Amino acid sequence: MVLKLFGSPVSTCTARVMACMEEIGLQYELVPVNLKTGEHQRPPHTDRNPFCQIPALQDGDLVLFESRVITRYLVRKYGKGTDLLKEKSFVESVAVDQWMEVEIQHFNGPISTIVFQHLFLPLLFGGHTDQNVVLLDVDKLGKVLDVYEARLSKTKFLAGDFYSLADLHHLPYAHYLLTSTPHGSLINSRPHVKAWWDAINSRPASKKVLAAMSS
Amino acid sequence: MVLKLFGSPVSTCTARVMACMEEIGLQYELVPVNLKTGEHQRPPHTDRNPFCQIPALQDGDLVLFESRVITRYLVRKYGKGTDLLKEKSFVESVAVDQWMEVEIQHFNGPISTIVFQHLFLPLLFGGHTDQNVVLLDVDKLGKVLDVYEARLSKTKFLAGDFYSLADLHHLPYAHYLLTSTPHGSLINSRPHVKAWWDAINSRPASKKVLAAMSS
Repeated sequence: MVLKLFGSPVSTCTARVMACMEEIGLQYELVPVNLKTGEHQRPPHTDRNPFCQIPALQDGDLVLFESRVITRYLVRKYGKGTDLLKEKSFVESVAVDQWMEVEIQHFNGPISTIVFQHLFLPLLFGGHTDQNVVLLDVDKLGKVLDVYEARLSKTKFLAGDFYSLADLHHLPYAHYLLTSTPHGSLINSRPHVKAWWDAINSRPASKKVLAAMSS
Repeated sequence: MVLKLFGSPVSTCTARVMACMEEIGLQYELVPVNLKTGEHQRPPHTDRNPFCQIPALQDGDLVLFESRVITRYLVRKYGKGTDLLKEKSFVESVAVDQWMEVEIQHFNGPISTIVFQHLFLPLLFGGHTDQNVVLLDVDKLGKVLDVYEARLSKTKFLAGDFYSLADLHHLPYAHYLLTSTPHGSLINSRPHVKAWWDAINSRPASKKVLAAMSS
């Protein structure tokens, strides 16, 4: 049974799951969901995700949504040979949980607003970037990345000296921040954050997904 | 070694952790952090949580922050006899992950804004409720709870017919919505959501925490 991922590689959340699948080395079929025609807002997609969003995963009879739930599931089921959840060490797995939650609660909010304002709003909705909104979130993201800079001066990756989902989950939005907004200096001006980002985006799995995001 | 929880029972995130500790039956010391004097914004609290928020947990040498990271940790370390993460069944544990993430991504945003506008803004900051902001989030939360209503017409709790962290994490904000805002009908008008809430708040552990939140 081939894993089916319903989504689009342009979507940060779909790309997040693809990066995880590539790290594990999974075969999967990417099934496009056409957002422009509202395919995500009607069955059968709303049976997969009642919140009308992408991506969703189908693995046999099991259907899941929310990118970070899907990545955790994939690692637990198929990725035991990886360090992505560090399941063999309780203390280190707790550190992975800690920094995965930081990405959700602190990083994702401001960076998604900045990327939306500069990339998706003009591209998909014909709108104009609101600089006041952007500047507020640039300030917020800067403070979050100050915490990352301090953390990454002690360990190579967020949860320790090993690459995990806590790092991987940052890939899509950090990529868009650097390639589609004028605020890449938020990453480039912080040496430990910059070295961390270089270590993430140079991985073969990341390169494959970043190429698909840009295609 | 006694577990130390740094926070305040008035804080929804502290109360979330307390509810988990009471469910497991853990002994712990609640160490107050004075937000009014800015104790959360300077050491030693910022060594516990670099994002200057409560709560934080100290368990021997291990220090954690983010309420949902702490609850997952406590269940994995001390709560193996409970169903709170349903660790003995892989498929059911994935369902717990699925609905924990729904709470974070869909429920927490709108309900925290409504409660902030009606309770914390006037109480702690001397501000006035912005009805336009509230109505937008009442609409959002209603749509989220429509999904909950459909789900809870099939299973007693969110992840299945068992109480888990996916339900417990809703306790503090649902309580404040019902007791400190005029929008309790969001819960009370949906029969399956109402029955679910009654099942949550009537648990002995929940009652203990709700009493502490109101004291």
